[in-house]
Amino acid sequence: MNSPEIQQMIQLLSRLPGLGPRSGRRVALHLLKKREALLKPLIEALQTADQTITTCQQCFNLDTSNPCHLCQDTKRDDHSLCIVADVADLWAIERSQIFKGRYHVLGGLLSALDNIGPQQLTIQPLLKRLENGQIQEIILALNSTVDGQTTVHYLANHLQSYAVKLSSLAQGVPMGGELDYLDDGTLSAAFSERKRLYA
Amino acid sequence: MNSPEIQQMIQLLSRLPGLGPRSGRRVALHLLKKREALLKPLIEALQTADQTITTCQQCFNLDTSNPCHLCQDTKRDDHSLCIVADVADLWAIERSQIFKGRYHVLGGLLSALDNIGPQQLTIQPLLKRLENGQIQEIILALNSTVDGQTTVHYLANHLQSYAVKLSSLAQGVPMGGELDYLDDGTLSAAFSERKRLYA
Repeated sequence: MNSPEIQQMIQLLSRLPGLGPRSGRRVALHLLKKREALLKPLIEALQTADQTITTCQQCFNLDTSNPCHLCQDTKRDDHSLCIVADVADLWAIERSQIFKGRYHVLGGLLSALDNIGPQQLTIQPLLKRLENGQIQEIILALNSTVDGQTTVHYLANHLQSYAVKLSSLAQGVPMGGELDYLDDGTLSAAFSERKRLYA
Repeated sequence: MNSPEIQQMIQLLSRLPGLGPRSGRRVALHLLKKREALLKPLIEALQTADQTITTCQQCFNLDTSNPCHLCQDTKRDDHSLCIVADVADLWAIERSQIFKGRYHVLGGLLSALDNIGPQQLTIQPLLKRLENGQIQEIILALNSTVDGQTTVHYLANHLQSYAVKLSSLAQGVPMGGELDYLDDGTLSAAFSERKRLYA
């Protein structure tokens, strides 16, 4: 119906996360209408990203340099390591500016359903990073899902033999959360981890 | 925080319709993870589209050829013309396979709010197409919105002097529509345009 060039463009755009055939068509038309303002700059940005972005072989972050700028930053704390599942999680923590140590990106979570075992994650390189004894604290910042908690337990077992303080993120009521709308799991976690106000 | 190459990519992706900063980041990460399967083919498809897709100078459709394949198709009815606001509307009508005549894409709708007057639309080329008297019927397939109906009235006034049958799309209950959920405007249009079942 449409020319194959437009069809191919729509088909690839439809495969982006969060887009489908309808929004793919919408994006394609929008791009074809705004060639100078959007289509050409986007092509260029995608090409530049494709050519320059690489995976840091130390923490497995995505960056133009290897080791990445977070691994190279001398102002960051070498004794503290935050383990995340995905680069998106690393970005989220960096945006919050709550953590000033180093990172390690696992590249996913253990999942029996998706057939992801320890070999598919960067656990071997993680254990190797711990060998020199520089890291004293590890924070497991993983999703509060079944897969995330499975991974927490697996890592807790394997990191026992290293002399590091190991912790995972607190669970409880999210900021601005209304009790009425919380699920039972969150409520019971918030109850069992309740904070004493007058110490 | 991120490298400028990633930031630029996210920033441009966030400007696509339906995407925002969060989904822009998600799309960027997805593309960087699937370079061979998605990023490179997408770059190529966007480049091909940018280089080959042009606007048909007869009906203002987007295609690789000018006149477009719809204007060139000898099997289509030369006496019937369907006026649409946007290429997306043309695609939607083509998908439904309900219409086998020619098209004319206005490039938008008259809108006082958005400061779009008759000069911004392809109304002059439309009147020129009508001059040879070949077109006998015109269907105004425009949105059932204030801007769409304003454009219908404007065109109806200007097409009066040409000897053409002029019609606009029927208004009423959409297929599968439940009366309970319809707005008052649709309901009253459906009532006043009611069909007699026994003729």
